Amino acid sequence: MAKKLGLKSVIKLLPIIVKSSQKLARPPISGFSVAAVGLASDGRIFVGVNVEFPGLPLHHSIHAEQFLITNLSLYPQTHLKNIVVSAYPCGHCRQFLQEIRGAPDIQILVLNSSNNFDDENGIFNQINEDGFIPLSHFLPHRFGPDDLLDKDVPLILETRDNNLVLKDAENGELCNGYLAFDGKKLIPAAFEAANKSHAPYSGCPSGVALIDEFGNIFKGSYMESAAYNPSMGPAQAAFIAYMAMAKGGDGGVVGASFDRIVGAVLVEVEGALVRQEETVRLLLMKASPKCEFHVYHCMKSGSSTMMG
Amino acid sequence: MAKKLGLKSVIKLLPIIVKSSQKLARPPISGFSVAAVGLASDGRIFVGVNVEFPGLPLHHSIHAEQFLITNLSLYPQTHLKNIVVSAYPCGHCRQFLQEIRGAPDIQILVLNSSNNFDDENGIFNQINEDGFIPLSHFLPHRFGPDDLLDKDVPLILETRDNNLVLKDAENGELCNGYLAFDGKKLIPAAFEAANKSHAPYSGCPSGVALIDEFGNIFKGSYMESAAYNPSMGPAQAAFIAYMAMAKGGDGGVVGASFDRIVGAVLVEVEGALVRQEETVRLLLMKASPKCEFHVYHCMKSGSSTMMG
Ligand SMILES: [Zn+2]
Ligand SMILES: [Zn+2]
Repeated sequence: MAKKLGLKSVIKLLPIIVKSSQKLARPPISGFSVAAVGLASDGRIFVGVNVEFPGLPLHHSIHAEQFLITNLSLYPQTHLKNIVVSAYPCGHCRQFLQEIRGAPDIQILVLNSSNNFDDENGIFNQINEDGFIPLSHFLPHRFGPDDLLDKDVPLILETRDNNLVLKDAENGELCNGYLAFDGKKLIPAAFEAANKSHAPYSGCPSGVALIDEFGNIFKGSYMESAAYNPSMGPAQAAFIAYMAMAKGGDGGVVGASFDRIVGAVLVEVEGALVRQEETVRLLLMKASPKCEFHVYHCMKSGSSTMMG
Repeated sequence: MAKKLGLKSVIKLLPIIVKSSQKLARPPISGFSVAAVGLASDGRIFVGVNVEFPGLPLHHSIHAEQFLITNLSLYPQTHLKNIVVSAYPCGHCRQFLQEIRGAPDIQILVLNSSNNFDDENGIFNQINEDGFIPLSHFLPHRFGPDDLLDKDVPLILETRDNNLVLKDAENGELCNGYLAFDGKKLIPAAFEAANKSHAPYSGCPSGVALIDEFGNIFKGSYMESAAYNPSMGPAQAAFIAYMAMAKGGDGGVVGASFDRIVGAVLVEVEGALVRQEETVRLLLMKASPKCEFHVYHCMKSGSSTMMG
């Protein structure tokens, strides 16, 4: 596509993808559609859009930049180099981005002039690699992982294994097939998501797995921010996987309705200081009212306490 | 106190107050105590500390800077000029601060060197008015109220009246004294808080009133952020009022336990796109398990629809 358009590099495609991706946003509260497009170090392009959930407080909302990072995290060992976004990133997103190693050097381009959006040639002429600005400019003197973690703790987009084990009783339920719907695979999927969860600040990892009416499974890992509040909930992360990957019966992919989610499992540490259960239930009740929801508990391997 | 210490201006007192205020923080999850102290345009000094709620997702957390702004909002027509804070503000807080008119010009000083904290004379020598840096430096190219609101819409810390009316049926309950505990005054208090709520982005204002076991009432207004997620929930705002103003039987003021809250009322717009009910109930259940909770609904004056 870059060749066809006569563009010098794939990076010049990103603004076009931003524009076309904005239609995929789901902002029923604000009506404000945002898209963020990221270029990974291996040349792959990832998209993020904003998602809002009516009937709930606004902290459930997913911003385009968070969607993008979560989308990237579905693929192992991917490094993010460039982001093009349709509006200036808010402080919440500038903070969430800090969870990526080398975050201050991520290059950002903001397409915030509506004139440029109306004129694609305008975009092409304006954009070049020099138009990108490092994230460090958008959030100087950051509060980030460096302030709280040792250098060798894996960050977002890096491989980790939280060494969790399902509690025996719940393992038994798994073996005996407790779940009514065809969702037995959901428990290992949610458990895998919990094992990949980025929760170095609280030590309370968790994961959610969703199943749609076609039997497809989508996994979401809880991902913490050093600043706590911008953390990505496990159900939100699973909704992002669903939006990014769902293949509906009518061929609708990214447009697939949350209504089609019929089952969900959360795996988290029992009695943990940070617990997702009630909040995941609340989100599912509003966004996917047909969804059957179950919670399973785990503990850290080799530890007799819950908190490790 | 400034005279006694021989300091040139009250501004030099702020770092001392930051240090002494850090003890008032309640961070049972992170163990990371943060204090923020603000100087208002009328010379008054306001304090904020961070508060965390175990057993819930981290988005319930209150940051010191948010506590400070909410504390300020309890007093009418106060403008914030300077903030001194014990750690670099996170992106979430830099964003929430944008709700104040003239936010880019708020002057911030960060006491992030532990050496300075160990040596009070060190603080005095280091700090002068030139040490402050404007918020615009910490969040350049902001996404803020200017991007979404007309100039004449009241912002945080400015007087507003949302022109709400309680629904008739619920007014009847009020008159007939539905509440079991001595909390009839809670309904008008929560209603007043909803009328003062800063919710220009969603149009869904709300307010919470709490009553403690001594009969004292504390009001919290929901306050939105242009970036949605950093918004301050109405129950969090009421907890801040409680921490800032509670006078317990044992003389403990800011240290008063949330256990002493025995009743709560939420007033919000029925069927609104942004609803607080379940989330307020969840927070109260965890933080104040003895608390009896009721919800009342309102609508906008002169409007037959819920959303105005
Ligand atoms: Zn954002
Ligand atoms: Zn903060």
